[in-house]
Amino acid sequence: MLKDLTITEFLEKTASAEPLPGGGCTAALNAALAASLTEMVANLTIGRKEFQAVEDEMKEIAQTAAGLSKKLQNDIDDDARAYQEVLAAFKLPKNTDDEKKQRAGAIQKAFKNAATVPLGVARDALKIMDLASRAVAKGNQNAVTDGAVGVLVSRTAALAAIYNVKVNLSAIKDPDFVKELAREVEALESQVIEKEKQILDPLKI
Amino acid sequence: MLKDLTITEFLEKTASAEPLPGGGCTAALNAALAASLTEMVANLTIGRKEFQAVEDEMKEIAQTAAGLSKKLQNDIDDDARAYQEVLAAFKLPKNTDDEKKQRAGAIQKAFKNAATVPLGVARDALKIMDLASRAVAKGNQNAVTDGAVGVLVSRTAALAAIYNVKVNLSAIKDPDFVKELAREVEALESQVIEKEKQILDPLKI
Repeated sequence: MLKDLTITEFLEKTASAEPLPGGGCTAALNAALAASLTEMVANLTIGRKEFQAVEDEMKEIAQTAAGLSKKLQNDIDDDARAYQEVLAAFKLPKNTDDEKKQRAGAIQKAFKNAATVPLGVARDALKIMDLASRAVAKGNQNAVTDGAVGVLVSRTAALAAIYNVKVNLSAIKDPDFVKELAREVEALESQVIEKEKQILDPLKI
Repeated sequence: MLKDLTITEFLEKTASAEPLPGGGCTAALNAALAASLTEMVANLTIGRKEFQAVEDEMKEIAQTAAGLSKKLQNDIDDDARAYQEVLAAFKLPKNTDDEKKQRAGAIQKAFKNAATVPLGVARDALKIMDLASRAVAKGNQNAVTDGAVGVLVSRTAALAAIYNVKVNLSAIKDPDFVKELAREVEALESQVIEKEKQILDPLKI
């Protein structure tokens, strides 16, 4: 799996003239990174006398962030697999009318999945922004920069995932599906941009 | 070295209650990711008849991006090492006046290095934005989303690195050094934010 590659291997594979791993995988990886930075801020707070009042909240943040990081690590591969399925669908035979119909259906199904995977990443990245915001506001102030970086990274993870939803939507012919997802990513996009400002501006870093 | 860890190991190490790797390492990793995505767009363009007019430019972009990615992979460790040196300096003995003076000097030297490493990352991330911009504008349009993600990621890499410069500057007592770096990161910050808009808005993704 891609998450089992070393950093150097993953970067080399990204850089190569193969389309995978691409921007969608980067989005999932970035969301996982943001989750892990958030978990770190919580972990650097837990067990310290001066933060006893927020001990339970920090434990909950650490646990939720750890779960999201694990899920998002798998999304790196899910995103790659979804794109591979699109490519595979295009390679299906198209000699008869029946084959053409089946191929067209497989292509549409694959594009829908390729739009749905990054939509999940964008949703999770937004959740991570909220977790990071709480960790930064109430957690160990020595780690505030790490939490702030988590916010920046989750913002970019969400926007990158949204780009990948949009590019796949442009190939989907089901107007209801397109309308629903387009509406959701538009809302997510505004929330992400607004939230980044709301969290980071008051920190005055 | 950190770049030799698997993605999962790196994320677990980030999430742990150890301060390293932290936000500074994430900044360098993100800049390397952006460089690799940019290299991919160029590599997906090179050797294609329809892009023969930009073949040489794409080769130059691929080569420059590859060099930056390699450099930035080492910056992941350099950033961690710089912070470890700060911690080590604080642990120096301070029993005599002479020891106190030496310790204070070592702390200041370590903080200066800890500010300089992420400054280099921020400068490189800005270079990558320019490379990604050219790759997106002139390269294989099938990879435009990957290039656009590269722009998002280099923006966040630069801002994350700038946060790390600033947090270290706040501990440095040499006013000329602080003034010079503060001025540079302020200029970099505006350029990065402006450039992201300039490159991504016209793409209308």
